[in-house]
Amino acid sequence: MRLPEPLSKLIEQFTILPGIGPRTAERLVFWLLKRSPETITNFAQVLTRAAHEILFCPTCHNLTDRTHEQCIICADTKRNHALVCVVADIPDLYALEKTSSYEGVYHVLGGVLNPLMGITPDKLTIRHLQERLTDLKVTELIFALNPDTEGEITATYVQKFVERNGLTITRLARGLPQGSDIGYADEITLSHALTDRR
Amino acid sequence: MRLPEPLSKLIEQFTILPGIGPRTAERLVFWLLKRSPETITNFAQVLTRAAHEILFCPTCHNLTDRTHEQCIICADTKRNHALVCVVADIPDLYALEKTSSYEGVYHVLGGVLNPLMGITPDKLTIRHLQERLTDLKVTELIFALNPDTEGEITATYVQKFVERNGLTITRLARGLPQGSDIGYADEITLSHALTDRR
Repeated sequence: MRLPEPLSKLIEQFTILPGIGPRTAERLVFWLLKRSPETITNFAQVLTRAAHEILFCPTCHNLTDRTHEQCIICADTKRNHALVCVVADIPDLYALEKTSSYEGVYHVLGGVLNPLMGITPDKLTIRHLQERLTDLKVTELIFALNPDTEGEITATYVQKFVERNGLTITRLARGLPQGSDIGYADEITLSHALTDRR
Repeated sequence: MRLPEPLSKLIEQFTILPGIGPRTAERLVFWLLKRSPETITNFAQVLTRAAHEILFCPTCHNLTDRTHEQCIICADTKRNHALVCVVADIPDLYALEKTSSYEGVYHVLGGVLNPLMGITPDKLTIRHLQERLTDLKVTELIFALNPDTEGEITATYVQKFVERNGLTITRLARGLPQGSDIGYADEITLSHALTDRR
């Protein structure tokens, strides 16, 4: 059946979101339309405000807002600015922050290399990382990229670009995740756990 | 960690949607923020437009837009206006429309009776249905409410309210769904399928 045009447009809009199919989009829209129009316009206002006020930190490419020149992490003088952790994307940065066990700063690449998907080195913030590292105060770079092919390739590529005297380059440890079962662990994980035993 | 305020507000906004928890909301928001600001403001515009332009049809309480006085179904003179199908909510109406096998019109109650959840008869469009049925041209009322306790109670309650001479009241058939397995069917469904055999 033909839906009123503003309604079908709204359903279509929700389906652009990842993991939201036409049925879920319909459900969300019908749910929203049962609320007051204020609920919906408020949703729209929060979106508009985010679009206008959320920016990338000029230092590390984390998210920040228009009222702050740098992101909360880069602006924090109590953190160790000699230690830079390279992550692919912002959710990875937040995951590391949630551990509360990292005191350094970050550099967000904006993705991992994947030439087939059009993600070439110039799409990432690699050159900017290189410029950042000309500051000799930075002494260690930790690669915190996913332990998969794209992550490995990206780390190797970036490493070649930024290597210089006095810069230690490390990667996150690989091994058995907490609560896992050795009997079910894959061979690659197990062999890493063996090699890096401590 | 502390997120920039417009960001945490946006994540919070997504979590009000049904079935969207904080993790999914975060994922959706980070995905959106990787698009251009235009994608986000466009999303906001579509929402605002829906809030302003989508209205309830004054006849059947289906959704319609500001440019049409009645919904597409009520305005369709080729449909059988003597046949009114009572549904709890708009998604049920759309589900019935998708079958393309119904030629009558609808009446959307706006929910089912559930006094514990505060859904009392005055919250539904029962009185309006009664007024609609004073038009003697309506000859049949089909209850298409979910075959569960709330649906049954609502149908029985509404039926008492609207009964009059010359009005046939029917309910959707109950029986085995297409593709189901008799061995796995529950007793209530099977006994309905037996009673209503044809």
